[in-house]
Amino acid sequence: MDGKALLRPVRADLLHEGKAKRVFSTDQPDLYIQEFKDSATAFDGTKKGTIAGKGSVNCRVSAKLFTLLEKWRVKTHFVDLLSDTEMIILPVKIIPVEVVVRNIAAGSLVKRYGFVEGRVLTPSIFELYLKNDELHDPLMNDDHVLAMGLADAGELAYLRRQAATVNDALCEFFGTIGISLVDFKLEFGRRPDNTIILADEISVDTCRLWDKQTGRKLDKDRFRFDLGDVEGAYQEILERTGAAK
Amino acid sequence: MDGKALLRPVRADLLHEGKAKRVFSTDQPDLYIQEFKDSATAFDGTKKGTIAGKGSVNCRVSAKLFTLLEKWRVKTHFVDLLSDTEMIILPVKIIPVEVVVRNIAAGSLVKRYGFVEGRVLTPSIFELYLKNDELHDPLMNDDHVLAMGLADAGELAYLRRQAATVNDALCEFFGTIGISLVDFKLEFGRRPDNTIILADEISVDTCRLWDKQTGRKLDKDRFRFDLGDVEGAYQEILERTGAAK
Repeated sequence: MDGKALLRPVRADLLHEGKAKRVFSTDQPDLYIQEFKDSATAFDGTKKGTIAGKGSVNCRVSAKLFTLLEKWRVKTHFVDLLSDTEMIILPVKIIPVEVVVRNIAAGSLVKRYGFVEGRVLTPSIFELYLKNDELHDPLMNDDHVLAMGLADAGELAYLRRQAATVNDALCEFFGTIGISLVDFKLEFGRRPDNTIILADEISVDTCRLWDKQTGRKLDKDRFRFDLGDVEGAYQEILERTGAAK
Repeated sequence: MDGKALLRPVRADLLHEGKAKRVFSTDQPDLYIQEFKDSATAFDGTKKGTIAGKGSVNCRVSAKLFTLLEKWRVKTHFVDLLSDTEMIILPVKIIPVEVVVRNIAAGSLVKRYGFVEGRVLTPSIFELYLKNDELHDPLMNDDHVLAMGLADAGELAYLRRQAATVNDALCEFFGTIGISLVDFKLEFGRRPDNTIILADEISVDTCRLWDKQTGRKLDKDRFRFDLGDVEGAYQEILERTGAAK
């Protein structure tokens, strides 16, 4: 599609299976395949379910957004779509620091600090979480990241700048289709040459998305809080982002 | 003692009663009295008890350390000792942000992130917690503080610089008496002219203190974890800091 993948890679070994995705090596040394699953978890894995079509929606929405971000000069691991549920990616070593950007108060911000849901945050709030299931992904600050040796100060500043650019790009994009980008989570990874690129996914699972007109939640909160029509919300984001075709 | 209190103030109204201290207005408009209690709580108030003599130890140790800090040009709310369990203080409006400095991994750092207890942290870790019992004093980052309007960016930088100076001063002092300053918590307050000064207490309740030779814990962890000889540890700190006389 963008000329990076000359040959269509073929799955080799399953390298990693997460809650919502699987990553495979391929017959090409510097290409992996990331497959998106329909299985869904919430509340630290205590709630489990399946959302029909989720894998396909998240794969295509992620592909769309990664492609958009490349135009904003954000380097990502995305190479090309392979199927509706698979994308070709560049191998990275994931940095176990989740970067969350919040434009509107929701979720843990409401629960943890008592923010009123829906409050616009100016400027946006950046958060770091340790990606560690056993420890339940605790909130961290920069000092914790440095003490754990997960990134150095320059890298932390880079992650924050990249996350700010992603936020600018996504706010603008979702704004044009009448959707508020409430918050989202990013993961980054290191390439063999130690450059850091955006990895993982940017999808209906990892963003909070509210319809600007109605306030209707069009994201995984419909699954988390049993709001009904979960599949419909995923499909609506697929359509409105133009990622369907 | 240091000339600030010309007249011995007399208690007027009880303004605030916390878990370990009470604050009274006095017959002098710009002087309050802070009284230290023997009652002890731990684990977010779920464990309660009494430590005989604690109020007196913490009052005198705090007075000693506040006096030391004034020599390091850290402005504090401490004016003078009034009795073994009471100090005269300057009224402030407490900023509801607890500043924690950690030199050695212990407590929540071990529990939350899996640090090995006793690991020396270089550089030290600074943390901010929202002082809010209902929300269980959650960890915050700078962005949360700014969004909640609890302090501005300049004030946050000031708190961090002051905390670093306190850490330098206390590490040096405790080092001379064979004690490791593992971590400690500070609270700051705003004066009527909006200057920020160090407030609350610096005591056996708010510091983790380990004997350098034996590693013996000489702080509130003896109460938290039923390590025995709780009163003995408090008295030992009183004696070794020279705050007894």
